[in-house]
Amino acid sequence: MRFSIKTKGFNDIIDITSQVLQVVRESALKDGICLISCPGSTCGITTMEYEEGLIKDFKRALEGIAPMSQDYEHCKKWGDCNGYAHIRSALIKPFLAVAIENGRLILGTWQQIVFLDFDNRPREREIMVKVLKG
Amino acid sequence: MRFSIKTKGFNDIIDITSQVLQVVRESALKDGICLISCPGSTCGITTMEYEEGLIKDFKRALEGIAPMSQDYEHCKKWGDCNGYAHIRSALIKPFLAVAIENGRLILGTWQQIVFLDFDNRPREREIMVKVLKG
Amino acid sequence: MRFSIKTKGFNDIIDITSQVLQVVRESALKDGICLISCPGSTCGITTMEYEEGLIKDFKRALEGIAPMSQDYEHCKKWGDCNGYAHIRSALIKPFLAVAIENGRLILGTWQQIVFLDFDNRPREREIMVKVLKG
Repeated sequence: MRFSIKTKGFNDIIDITSQVLQVVRESALKDGICLISCPGSTCGITTMEYEEGLIKDFKRALEGIAPMSQDYEHCKKWGDCNGYAHIRSALIKPFLAVAIENGRLILGTWQQIVFLDFDNRPREREIMVKVLKG
Repeated sequence: MRFSIKTKGFNDIIDITSQVLQVVRESALKDGICLISCPGSTCGITTMEYEEGLIKDFKRALEGIAPMSQDYEHCKKWGDCNGYAHIRSALIKPFLAVAIENGRLILGTWQQIVFLDFDNRPREREIMVKVLKG
Repeated sequence: MRFSIKTKGFNDIIDITSQVLQVVRESALKDGICLISCPGSTCGITTMEYEEGLIKDFKRALEGIAPMSQDYEHCKKWGDCNGYAHIRSALIKPFLAVAIENGRLILGTWQQIVFLDFDNRPREREIMVKVLKG
């Protein structure tokens, strides 16, 4: 199963928990795991407390790891100046696995599933959700 | 299946390999994968050589990525000054998948499964272990 | 199923997409997930656009996170001076999960599966591929 989201790019961080929950509910799977992934090399999926302050903090930390303003070889060679986006994606990876028990995703109270669009333009992204029986 | 551990917080790094091995043994699964996860937004799960020197090295590297002493927006807004813990968790993620063959976890000789508690206080954590048939 | 690769170590980044694709094809699985992993504490698996410029960019970013030239406690205690390799492996992790649909790995056009050998010597590595029915 899959769903689409529109992003603003530039490290847009989007809470996709409710969409994933709906897919899990519709699957009627009681026990197992759920793989959330997105095909692409400029995005990431992880979990975090989806809170305005932390969203800023996370963006700042990512800026420290792979700055947007830095010169990247990828840009020099291809004129495609989203090198920072590729590096962030390779580090964070565009997939996440979550356990399912009694038909519920096992997440903490302050833990949301987030999609990160690192690319340097707005994008429409297709998120894949696979459920597997435990 | 699940088990509990007590942590000291503040980047406590705990070897949970033996507990995971026991769950896999009890499951009697011969071939597949094992998902180890923890609900929460201030912890992480990964593998490493669980050795005193490397434990220090890892803590230092994490300090470089998201310093404990830095000002975080999360703290300013909520008075909950564990912003570094949230950022580390979003980067490392609180889940890990390991292959199972002939009833054994496929790990290297110097590779242990470790739980990282980034939070700024001691915690009791519940680790989930799901085994799936390959 | 598994396959072997020879690496040069020192952050050698190797495209293993075609080998993984072959395993998935041979499995004849139509729908599910694929876990790619490698036992070891000095390697990583992720996805990226496998392009010369980005390969350099990624190596530079990793050098920022855990420099090869830095002093590591792991080296002081054990004389095994690949501390940077262990830290990079603990951060990136030696496993990856990819969705399978209609017998195909769900990857983006510019997204390859890469193996990273951080160790400070050439290695022969065994990559495990597990397919699971969705």
